[in-house]
Amino acid sequence: IADKKNADLRLMMKEFHYADIAEIAEELTKDEATYLIKLLDSEKTSDILAEMDEDLRESILKNLSAKEIAGELEELDTDDAADIVSELPKDIVQEVISEIEDKEHAKDIVDLLRYDEDTAGGLMAKELVKVKENWNVLTCVKEMRAQAENVTRVHSIYVVDDEDKLKGRLSLKDLLTTSTKTHIKDVYISKVDYVTVNEKSEEVAKIMSKYDLEAIPVVDEIGRLVGRITIDDIVDVIREEADKDYQLAAGITQDVEADDSIIELTRARLPWLFLGLIGGIGAFIIMEGFEKILAQGYAILFLFTPLIAAMAGNVGVQSSAIIVQGLANDDLKGSINKRLVKEMLLATLNGIVLAMFLLLFVWLWTKEPQLALAISISLVAVIIVAGLIGTFVPLFLDKRGIDPAIATGPFITTSNDIFGILIYFWIAKLVLGI
Amino acid sequence: IADKKNADLRLMMKEFHYADIAEIAEELTKDEATYLIKLLDSEKTSDILAEMDEDLRESILKNLSAKEIAGELEELDTDDAADIVSELPKDIVQEVISEIEDKEHAKDIVDLLRYDEDTAGGLMAKELVKVKENWNVLTCVKEMRAQAENVTRVHSIYVVDDEDKLKGRLSLKDLLTTSTKTHIKDVYISKVDYVTVNEKSEEVAKIMSKYDLEAIPVVDEIGRLVGRITIDDIVDVIREEADKDYQLAAGITQDVEADDSIIELTRARLPWLFLGLIGGIGAFIIMEGFEKILAQGYAILFLFTPLIAAMAGNVGVQSSAIIVQGLANDDLKGSINKRLVKEMLLATLNGIVLAMFLLLFVWLWTKEPQLALAISISLVAVIIVAGLIGTFVPLFLDKRGIDPAIATGPFITTSNDIFGILIYFWIAKLVLGI
Repeated sequence: IADKKNADLRLMMKEFHYADIAEIAEELTKDEATYLIKLLDSEKTSDILAEMDEDLRESILKNLSAKEIAGELEELDTDDAADIVSELPKDIVQEVISEIEDKEHAKDIVDLLRYDEDTAGGLMAKELVKVKENWNVLTCVKEMRAQAENVTRVHSIYVVDDEDKLKGRLSLKDLLTTSTKTHIKDVYISKVDYVTVNEKSEEVAKIMSKYDLEAIPVVDEIGRLVGRITIDDIVDVIREEADKDYQLAAGITQDVEADDSIIELTRARLPWLFLGLIGGIGAFIIMEGFEKILAQGYAILFLFTPLIAAMAGNVGVQSSAIIVQGLANDDLKGSINKRLVKEMLLATLNGIVLAMFLLLFVWLWTKEPQLALAISISLVAVIIVAGLIGTFVPLFLDKRGIDPAIATGPFITTSNDIFGILIYFWIAKLVLGI
Repeated sequence: IADKKNADLRLMMKEFHYADIAEIAEELTKDEATYLIKLLDSEKTSDILAEMDEDLRESILKNLSAKEIAGELEELDTDDAADIVSELPKDIVQEVISEIEDKEHAKDIVDLLRYDEDTAGGLMAKELVKVKENWNVLTCVKEMRAQAENVTRVHSIYVVDDEDKLKGRLSLKDLLTTSTKTHIKDVYISKVDYVTVNEKSEEVAKIMSKYDLEAIPVVDEIGRLVGRITIDDIVDVIREEADKDYQLAAGITQDVEADDSIIELTRARLPWLFLGLIGGIGAFIIMEGFEKILAQGYAILFLFTPLIAAMAGNVGVQSSAIIVQGLANDDLKGSINKRLVKEMLLATLNGIVLAMFLLLFVWLWTKEPQLALAISISLVAVIIVAGLIGTFVPLFLDKRGIDPAIATGPFITTSNDIFGILIYFWIAKLVLGI
């Protein structure tokens, strides 16, 4: 389509939502996408840019002048604008900022740049509607109209005192239904949830979803209202958090996508595979230690090692996943000991059911009841230990302030492989009396 | 605290948010929780009930009369009320509904009951603010005040024609800034995103988060406005979806939590463990087929089977996780063949790096270069095949309309264990010429 039918293209794109155009742009080559962005006016392109994939955005912005970038930023809310500025090469940031005509907007963006990406400060936007407590409803409505110009969606109206300290909130609905002469002081709701600028994004997400909030005000260390966070940004936080945990469980670090380059994907995957390799070598060394068994005619024991390792891994992943999820959703109660006892009962129950089946199979296959018994008893022990490790490790990591999500996946499967095989041979030897 | 100091308790609870009380109630015994609910007034308890864990809610409701339950439902939005009604035992539903005094509210709840939980109809609430296109702004504001009484948060005002068909929307902001005599026809925005009642919840979530919507109107098959879905319900859908995928990847079916009973947890975990057991038995049978190698002095090959199985499993989980996530986020482009070629390159690269390391280790340990070479070449082959299976299976399941999330986890590790061991022995035999 991009063979320069500008008028047609412009007309076509007018019909599309910016999120759709961003998706289309991602399908195009970089040059085509840049061309498309230059073609449309900045009111639309700014939203498209904010919506699109980081890598693509970066390469498009490279082809725009500082003035053009400033034009885009001018159209965006401060939070999205600050996100884009933080990705720009350091040497042009200064220039871009100075090209922004609306000095207030530029100042707000610069303010936001100093907050860490993963905190409330990094998520918030400067756009909000605030009123002073000693205004009356009429002044309030007038002021609000002016302020609302810059705010895409008014959620709550925040009430502040003369020092800009957050006092409470006011709903649009209340404002609609009170007389114009009433003082704000007398109608506002003093109970208002808020977060401070340094709160972790995950915490903000928990608070907002727990209390079903659609926007939350952000205050600085001394209680002054500095911004607000809206639920749509929180939806992104929740998604990213979930994606990260899912990838960690699968043994992938960093935030990679299927369409990233092979080098990026390797960097995210290889370290975990390497961990698995070390684990496998560990298992080999352990098995070599039991090699004498081979000579004694019990070679068959070695043929069950993949089964034992797989079961230890599976049980470990299951129990750690439940704990990691419980920690993430804040709904774990009771002590570590209680959890461990519960997991032990659960693992014993599951282990016995599975071991009965294995006993039957080995017995029928080999006609050696004692061997079947030895393998089955080992299996139960392995499952119990694997369950306990899977429960303990994430709880321990969490207590130490480490993200427990790394405990599910290669980390737990590898350690459980090793422990599993060790326990297996040790118990089998004991039962068989060799 | 629950030793009957009613007045104190009531005062204390007044200070708390309902979400906090719900959390407190979950820590209490069932009797205490019921007692607490009976103590407080239904305006607050209804929200507490809506917020709390399903199991606890069920047992509390058992101790309430139909009239009391109806009182709670009366205070709730239709969507939350319908959720609670759908959990009640069938024989008392009729009675509870007939006890609801507000007949309109009761009708709305009954309407909502007929939609599937996982569709837009199951998520939506009947509460919304709608205006007719031929009203003027003044009538509109008057009508809205009345309607807004029942609506906790007004997001958009929906514009309908005389047949109740959705025509467009109006923002509160616009209403604030236009003259009172203007006709709605002339100011409303005709472009409005909507979903139909039968749309899947996941789809609704995708649409709302893609377009950053905070509420979306729901229309029936012929375009009549029947409800609206707000973003806070979508946040729950996203969380549940992520939790489900995470659990499936860890080999846990059904939506279980760490605090569920051992029986429930076993039911969710045992089937997947059983699958792993079958896989292990499969691996045993394959290895027995290669038993002749044992006699020929190559017993050492068997000591590497856990390593081979672990690597095959890890690679399979990694590649399937990336595909599953790409499918969930709708950002996979290009054909299956292209994906498979990419994964093959990636697996080859990772495989060679890992195999070099293994080669060195085995060589130094056994002083048998040919054996080391055989094992390393097998490892590369195993990793490539595991990567391809991990990529292909979720894409295949998705094409067939099956949730690809089941492909990550025990399903892929088990099949990769078997294929991995088979390929390993086969190639090792070939290279060693036995």
